[in-house]
Amino acid sequence: MLIGANKIESHNDELLKKHQNKFAFTTSEVGETESIIQKLIDFQIAIPSWALGTGGTRFGRFPGGGEPRSIEEKIEDVGLLHALNNASGAISLHIPWDIPTDYQAIKNLAGQHGLKFDAMNSNTFQDQATQEHSYKFGSLQNANKAIRKQAIAHNIEVIKHGIELGSESLTVWLADGSSFPGQLNFRKAYQNTLESLEEIYAALPSNWKLFLEYKCAEPNFYSTTVADWGQSYSYVKKLGDKAQTLVDLGHHLPNANIEQIVSLLLMEGKLGGFHFNDSKYGDDDLTAGALKPYQLFLIFNELVEGMDARGMNHAKDLGWMIDASHNIKDPLEDLLQSVEAIMIAYAQALLVDRKALEIAQEENDVVKAQEILQNAFRTDVRALVAEARLRSGAALNPVALYRGLDVRGNLIGERGLKTMATGL
Amino acid sequence: MLIGANKIESHNDELLKKHQNKFAFTTSEVGETESIIQKLIDFQIAIPSWALGTGGTRFGRFPGGGEPRSIEEKIEDVGLLHALNNASGAISLHIPWDIPTDYQAIKNLAGQHGLKFDAMNSNTFQDQATQEHSYKFGSLQNANKAIRKQAIAHNIEVIKHGIELGSESLTVWLADGSSFPGQLNFRKAYQNTLESLEEIYAALPSNWKLFLEYKCAEPNFYSTTVADWGQSYSYVKKLGDKAQTLVDLGHHLPNANIEQIVSLLLMEGKLGGFHFNDSKYGDDDLTAGALKPYQLFLIFNELVEGMDARGMNHAKDLGWMIDASHNIKDPLEDLLQSVEAIMIAYAQALLVDRKALEIAQEENDVVKAQEILQNAFRTDVRALVAEARLRSGAALNPVALYRGLDVRGNLIGERGLKTMATGL
Amino acid sequence: MLIGANKIESHNDELLKKHQNKFAFTTSEVGETESIIQKLIDFQIAIPSWALGTGGTRFGRFPGGGEPRSIEEKIEDVGLLHALNNASGAISLHIPWDIPTDYQAIKNLAGQHGLKFDAMNSNTFQDQATQEHSYKFGSLQNANKAIRKQAIAHNIEVIKHGIELGSESLTVWLADGSSFPGQLNFRKAYQNTLESLEEIYAALPSNWKLFLEYKCAEPNFYSTTVADWGQSYSYVKKLGDKAQTLVDLGHHLPNANIEQIVSLLLMEGKLGGFHFNDSKYGDDDLTAGALKPYQLFLIFNELVEGMDARGMNHAKDLGWMIDASHNIKDPLEDLLQSVEAIMIAYAQALLVDRKALEIAQEENDVVKAQEILQNAFRTDVRALVAEARLRSGAALNPVALYRGLDVRGNLIGERGLKTMATGL
Amino acid sequence: MLIGANKIESHNDELLKKHQNKFAFTTSEVGETESIIQKLIDFQIAIPSWALGTGGTRFGRFPGGGEPRSIEEKIEDVGLLHALNNASGAISLHIPWDIPTDYQAIKNLAGQHGLKFDAMNSNTFQDQATQEHSYKFGSLQNANKAIRKQAIAHNIEVIKHGIELGSESLTVWLADGSSFPGQLNFRKAYQNTLESLEEIYAALPSNWKLFLEYKCAEPNFYSTTVADWGQSYSYVKKLGDKAQTLVDLGHHLPNANIEQIVSLLLMEGKLGGFHFNDSKYGDDDLTAGALKPYQLFLIFNELVEGMDARGMNHAKDLGWMIDASHNIKDPLEDLLQSVEAIMIAYAQALLVDRKALEIAQEENDVVKAQEILQNAFRTDVRALVAEARLRSGAALNPVALYRGLDVRGNLIGERGLKTMATGL
Repeated sequence: MLIGANKIESHNDELLKKHQNKFAFTTSEVGETESIIQKLIDFQIAIPSWALGTGGTRFGRFPGGGEPRSIEEKIEDVGLLHALNNASGAISLHIPWDIPTDYQAIKNLAGQHGLKFDAMNSNTFQDQATQEHSYKFGSLQNANKAIRKQAIAHNIEVIKHGIELGSESLTVWLADGSSFPGQLNFRKAYQNTLESLEEIYAALPSNWKLFLEYKCAEPNFYSTTVADWGQSYSYVKKLGDKAQTLVDLGHHLPNANIEQIVSLLLMEGKLGGFHFNDSKYGDDDLTAGALKPYQLFLIFNELVEGMDARGMNHAKDLGWMIDASHNIKDPLEDLLQSVEAIMIAYAQALLVDRKALEIAQEENDVVKAQEILQNAFRTDVRALVAEARLRSGAALNPVALYRGLDVRGNLIGERGLKTMATGL
Repeated sequence: MLIGANKIESHNDELLKKHQNKFAFTTSEVGETESIIQKLIDFQIAIPSWALGTGGTRFGRFPGGGEPRSIEEKIEDVGLLHALNNASGAISLHIPWDIPTDYQAIKNLAGQHGLKFDAMNSNTFQDQATQEHSYKFGSLQNANKAIRKQAIAHNIEVIKHGIELGSESLTVWLADGSSFPGQLNFRKAYQNTLESLEEIYAALPSNWKLFLEYKCAEPNFYSTTVADWGQSYSYVKKLGDKAQTLVDLGHHLPNANIEQIVSLLLMEGKLGGFHFNDSKYGDDDLTAGALKPYQLFLIFNELVEGMDARGMNHAKDLGWMIDASHNIKDPLEDLLQSVEAIMIAYAQALLVDRKALEIAQEENDVVKAQEILQNAFRTDVRALVAEARLRSGAALNPVALYRGLDVRGNLIGERGLKTMATGL
Repeated sequence: MLIGANKIESHNDELLKKHQNKFAFTTSEVGETESIIQKLIDFQIAIPSWALGTGGTRFGRFPGGGEPRSIEEKIEDVGLLHALNNASGAISLHIPWDIPTDYQAIKNLAGQHGLKFDAMNSNTFQDQATQEHSYKFGSLQNANKAIRKQAIAHNIEVIKHGIELGSESLTVWLADGSSFPGQLNFRKAYQNTLESLEEIYAALPSNWKLFLEYKCAEPNFYSTTVADWGQSYSYVKKLGDKAQTLVDLGHHLPNANIEQIVSLLLMEGKLGGFHFNDSKYGDDDLTAGALKPYQLFLIFNELVEGMDARGMNHAKDLGWMIDASHNIKDPLEDLLQSVEAIMIAYAQALLVDRKALEIAQEENDVVKAQEILQNAFRTDVRALVAEARLRSGAALNPVALYRGLDVRGNLIGERGLKTMATGL
Repeated sequence: MLIGANKIESHNDELLKKHQNKFAFTTSEVGETESIIQKLIDFQIAIPSWALGTGGTRFGRFPGGGEPRSIEEKIEDVGLLHALNNASGAISLHIPWDIPTDYQAIKNLAGQHGLKFDAMNSNTFQDQATQEHSYKFGSLQNANKAIRKQAIAHNIEVIKHGIELGSESLTVWLADGSSFPGQLNFRKAYQNTLESLEEIYAALPSNWKLFLEYKCAEPNFYSTTVADWGQSYSYVKKLGDKAQTLVDLGHHLPNANIEQIVSLLLMEGKLGGFHFNDSKYGDDDLTAGALKPYQLFLIFNELVEGMDARGMNHAKDLGWMIDASHNIKDPLEDLLQSVEAIMIAYAQALLVDRKALEIAQEENDVVKAQEILQNAFRTDVRALVAEARLRSGAALNPVALYRGLDVRGNLIGERGLKTMATGL
């Protein structure tokens, strides 16, 4: 299914007057908005191929219909999102779930949808039917060298696929760890993992980056071998300039101050990118901004301040990706909601009066500093985000248009009700 | 596979001398041990049918071999455990994973292994192929009455299976809840659930109990409709005398004081039973006692004190069951370790000098009270637990004998390497 | 210091045009606003006497100047807040920190500031110089009956003070609990506490309420005798209709779903009132809405829905109070910020499209339900809150006027720099 | 008060026979015990001067009597502990609470009690009466350079006191952080702190170490400037070889795997030392081993393995200190209980069959690895710890002797009932 420009236009025409009124008011409130809108237009959030189907939990799974059955259909799905919001201009593939057979054809298809290939993702947390050794006791950490070798080779293969597609980064998330005290020698697990990462790092093209994710727990429930930002930092520091830490919002212990971590990693030149989602208990993988929108804003507040301080390009110098799981919502609707929440947080962060905040901080005026942030957060910036979409040919209200066009119904018609996307 | 009494005897003969020496010393240390040993002999922990196969996480699953393929083989597995430790004399079935076709045959088989049928478990957290309505948005709480009716009927069917087998209780664990703010009207979800439970309750035979489990989160990640002990308590209070709360050790928010909850539920006459396991992060479902053995002891300390205060029979008046998940250990070995840890905690709790503790509490002698508990916990009670096994014809060292007899190898020989037990 | 009406008027005159413009736009966006504004005008949040001075932590304390030295000066401080925002029309006193000597004089003074006397607070978590027995090992729970009697008598004395002042409720917060396993017999502690509460309850006038707070931990670090909503509920259920549960937002274990608790307590007719504050780690007692504004909104969303469902009066049928602590902010500025955040959350909750939400919930339209709540939350309602202030003679921007008038400087001039308010 | 050798001897004589019997059995169970006992004799845990008096919470404080009123009396108290257990052979001082006037006299006094001076502790989390600038908004992080300078100078002064007394390390714990979003620029706070630490580091004698503590929260409740091990590691890495991380067991987010952190810091050569205590909710500062004895054992398991792997001396190459707070126990009794729990955990860790564990880990035999650790932990090692005391002239049962001699009664007699130790 394709969403024609005319469909979007007629949708926008209907909402235009109300939008213009709100946009005019917002502009009058916040002052100069043109540079903000341009930044919003430029900002793109990659969609992971596995978020297009039902993810779910270890308990029941409740797949919807019309899920993408192939890499081509996944690209089609992201294309639909991008047509609707012009903010999802990249797809992040996962090997072996998305092994392309004809690179050029895939690149052409993505190009038709205006999509780039974001970070490639390897998988050493599951056993594939064709695989010689099992990752039951870990991959890059494994006490058994043959298993480590297999996992290293897999990662290098993923890089190769990515090179063909024009991706420029590899995201390594390791399930490696232990579920019981005594199971692992932490030091040896670290050193094995480091050695393995060094081999993978050596296979990176010069323009590539390696993003090393951390996660406090799950699927191992006693220790994880890259468990927190400090551990990821200690690895990427040893690996070299191309290695950086990737922050997934759902991978922290309760109450962690993620925005401080983001600020410090940026300071160290070791922040590589993000996996956006939201959570209450663990790695719940819910819609971004669905539970803690102020935290999301505070994170963007650090990103904007920190990237500007280093002269970084917001849109290009970090990897932005959603990583969520869908069990009870239509994945495409959920992704539209995630992108909207992220854009809102970003827009709010762009509104922060940096000069005033700096002065308040210098003067330890805590009340004022709080007011400055709350002032930005309490501002209704939805018209700015909508204006960015309007100017780039996307829909004023993506979810409404998605529903109005019965996209899901169309996809079910095309693909069937009982399809099942590859993934978790 | 069956473990003959002669195998156990020759195993015990080898270890006997060392055991007798240790047992004699322990007796000399703790004084009277006969009543403790009798209580240990009487204490039986039910094994849930789904813990006999690979459970796992929402990520990789790493099945071992020789998993039971049928209810008969599950009974055989529990029979093996019971032969080894004489403390696993019951099996807890799950419908629809364990629907018996011939009740009498199943009862006979269980009887041959010395097993009873513990609580029956219903399943409204997954959709079965034959089912009309989906539980995607909950079962007993569902806004749709037809779905609630279906879930009620399922629970009543489970009771019927249980009656045939001689079970006397139904455990209701509900995944019902919501993953996003706004999804649920909490009050209506509560009232729907209550109404549904009332219909199920009405179908209980007079000698049955209904155990209502609570869980803070997962698989729903915003709210759960029976989320904590207080919520479970408020339901079972309304339902009536046959309804009680079931405590699963892994279902609490971080830092919860579970032993206090246990004490208060006992006081209210509303504690029904236990699901034993251990965890660090969430519902990790690890081996009982593997991470927090002192907490397990403190829980048993409350159980012994509270049950004695109410004149309850330790072995019979509460439901004792393991609920764990196995991804990287042989399930049978893990279950043997769980039972051992539970028996140790129980034995330590039996050692507590109740009279001295009561005096210390009356006098607010905090140092003394701590010493009394630590004294019991620091005592090596393994010889008492082993003696209880020895006297009842089980093995002095169950895991060692299990390995010595290559039970898993035999099961793989009989059942094959790639079997897959029903369950999560 | 008094803030004259003319000061407020001239402040408002300056901001009026900008405000009117924003208010007009907001009205055009959200439709009918008059009923919302009336509700905002009616809504009053009590200020606790102890929040007017430096609270702090167990580490450094950094008092500011001009703190109130007497009950009269505390009333003056709340009067200043109320003059500025017309939303702080009550003071909550604490005995023995605020024992009045001349009730009528105090009532007159409060009346001059337009203040009522909200819930009275007792203190059995500290020892007073004149006190016979120590609360080192608890008060209402104490194993020693004489200590329980003393604590009961104190609470009854607090009620008497409250009767004289026209208060109609007693808030009981108990530090009772234990810091070490074994210290307490949980059941006896519960029963002692219940008995003690029954005696206090018996002394309540017929128009009074008893609010029983719960708290998961601190100052006791192993168990607390009223530790969670379920425990408080089980007490107040036994006590009778005049006893209800009080929810302090900072008193929960990590990740607790407070809004669900609120909804269920309302459903049971057992929600008595609130202590507002915000927190990240424990009972941090920070400014309301400073960290989790969406949670605050979700709580108000349940309050509005649940109170309306029971036909309750928002302003009168529950107790609304701030409970915060101030170490690094000017307490009065902080309280203005707290009240503003609470009013914003309340206004947003009033905006929620209840009918649409109910339909979305009936249809399990999770995406829609989320949108409805987010739509309300993302709306900039500050002009509505400001309009409510404007209409009732308060300041459009209370913090700005507070600073513009140099209220703190004036208070320091009147009271001195090194004053120290009674309290924590 | 002094405890004469004869008092200890007669106490030991009474318990000797029972002890010898138990020791003989333990030796027969665990094999070679001589090297373990020697290690236990050598192991000394420093007592912080502030733990000798009532610490407490931000709520009630309940001081006992006979608290030390001077540095001399603090040394006397630690001397009493050391006489009783011969495992508390050092005191850790805090400036300005313990500023010595006559270094030589103090050194002589300590020498008479067999005590050394462990790490010196600076205090920039409170304002002293004589101090020019306030630490209200932090010390080493402060936006105001003059305040940073003052805090640096204080730390250098602490080093000077330490040099005079023969201490060889400085522990820096910073309360620096923020309580509200926006208050701090995290990057600048980090850089200010780093610069300040560099100046302090430059003042260290060549044989000294600087221990940098981390803490997730409290007294700041939004961010802490040295918040986790990763942050401390990133500072000490930049500072140089003399700078190392100090782990306080109570300073972590919920569910943190502390033993893994310990292992990795040891691997990096950046573990400096420990503050022992126990906790359930936050920095509860309870008796070591009172709540999570298995965690304490697992930490020692990593310490023994990791230190042996680096050829380190257990007793000398890391700093061992208790950091606890006392509100409801006699501080000296509590410290005796803490030391006992630490020695037990250490002894259990020494019992672990390292060779077998290494093999189990190499073979991913998770069940076996768990058994090896549980076997050590379940062994009753109290006779080993007691034997170490017996051989070094200390008491078989320190708490019993302390009570038998009525030490507290004597101290109250000497010092009075209403003394108040300096400290929190």
